[in-house]
Amino acid sequence: MNFISRLYTAQKKSRSLLCIGLDTDRKKLPVHLQSKKNGILEFNRRIIEATSEFVCAYKINFAFYESLGKAGWEIIEKTKALVPSRALTIADAKRGDIGNSSSYYADAILNAMGFDAVTVAPYMGKDSVAPFMQWKEKGVFLLALTSNEGAMDFQMKKNGRRKLFEEVVLTSQQWNIRHNLGFVVGATRAKDIHRVRTLAPDIPFLVPGIGSQGGSLKDVVQYGCTNDGFGVLINASRSILYASSGKNFAEAARAEAEKLTNEINSLRKTIFNLRG
Amino acid sequence: MNFISRLYTAQKKSRSLLCIGLDTDRKKLPVHLQSKKNGILEFNRRIIEATSEFVCAYKINFAFYESLGKAGWEIIEKTKALVPSRALTIADAKRGDIGNSSSYYADAILNAMGFDAVTVAPYMGKDSVAPFMQWKEKGVFLLALTSNEGAMDFQMKKNGRRKLFEEVVLTSQQWNIRHNLGFVVGATRAKDIHRVRTLAPDIPFLVPGIGSQGGSLKDVVQYGCTNDGFGVLINASRSILYASSGKNFAEAARAEAEKLTNEINSLRKTIFNLRG
Repeated sequence: MNFISRLYTAQKKSRSLLCIGLDTDRKKLPVHLQSKKNGILEFNRRIIEATSEFVCAYKINFAFYESLGKAGWEIIEKTKALVPSRALTIADAKRGDIGNSSSYYADAILNAMGFDAVTVAPYMGKDSVAPFMQWKEKGVFLLALTSNEGAMDFQMKKNGRRKLFEEVVLTSQQWNIRHNLGFVVGATRAKDIHRVRTLAPDIPFLVPGIGSQGGSLKDVVQYGCTNDGFGVLINASRSILYASSGKNFAEAARAEAEKLTNEINSLRKTIFNLRG
Repeated sequence: MNFISRLYTAQKKSRSLLCIGLDTDRKKLPVHLQSKKNGILEFNRRIIEATSEFVCAYKINFAFYESLGKAGWEIIEKTKALVPSRALTIADAKRGDIGNSSSYYADAILNAMGFDAVTVAPYMGKDSVAPFMQWKEKGVFLLALTSNEGAMDFQMKKNGRRKLFEEVVLTSQQWNIRHNLGFVVGATRAKDIHRVRTLAPDIPFLVPGIGSQGGSLKDVVQYGCTNDGFGVLINASRSILYASSGKNFAEAARAEAEKLTNEINSLRKTIFNLRG
């Protein structure tokens, strides 16, 4: 089964388009876990147990773990193992190198560590991305239009004909022979989400930037979803992980995840006339 | 002392512009080391000991080590520790993420691990690069024009006014308030090396792509160097690491490094009329 089908299946079964980003910031752990030896792993375990019912995927942001050196690498592996098999795992690693090196990154993340998908940077072009796309059941979310300010510096720069993110979206679809390509499309600019969907009618989007970064959920559903009300994976991190800074952080995260999933689904029902 | 001055000093003292890329491929280790428990670290130790006299820097390509999981992370740290202090250490990690995440990558690589410089991808713009540039003595080599085929896909795409790599080179120099910015400029297209040098007269280049990838050493020196015959850091990996696949690999690497450094210096003498 190719990645697109796997994603669709996971979203149907969980009745959720929500992905929780495990951007676990040791400085933001609840006080009672900050001193604990395995505080970060324990935090991730509680978050996953409390929220897995309401999500179709978890995204692990490597930056937060690499900053802990090899201990962090171990936490990534152990956290990955805590995710129930019904949910997909996405390595938010934003890698990209010449072919030979990308092959090593791809093998490490998608084989050795066994993630279902990975985020990849497009700057170095096809031979830097292709090694991540060699297994049809594993997905690549290529950075197309990111949710940060810096997206204006190059991605939004107008070419003679089109903007860089449009070039990336059009060119990279020619590489998608195994139907396992997705795009990272930030939630912060409705008009541009719509633009990417127009240029890529069938490609799944991983959408960061709602919640703390201020993107509109309605815009993401309305302009990001494919016509069947699927096609987007909506990521939330801080708004769920840090819903409470107390001992009840997991319950608070669960409530926030349930609320967000319900909001997304009611928007989908209204906009796409979906049944129950 | 800012990074540019540190690089200049290291190159003057070593009388070398050569950087050895420790892209240590476990599949290419000499047979007698392949079975050994710490074969990769041992290989790196022998290479560093045999070649350090002829280089100003070592570049560690994270891809080859991450593929070994947390063990690989440990090898990176131990290899870094083997580099004599007179040589600079470059983390070839090609990171780049939203500001918050980039701060973690920057802290991990430049502080915790203590590398002198890091390679960074530009696609996400200023706030994804700035965290790596916050310490004046630490350098950032921003991907400008890479040496792989895929460079044609986006970097070389002509804008209305200019190509993407030209945009990156011009825009990112506005971020260089601490004089610690460098560019990765592949050796494979003389005309384009010349173009980047024209757009960035004073910025150091990290130049991969000579040797195995076929770039011309003469072109790199002639078009890449600043007018004083410095300003480039010429990286060689496979041609040195795998100069011999036998037990004499270190001696062969040493001979290759010495030969390459001498070639570079004689080209510099001829082209820039340098003394001694």
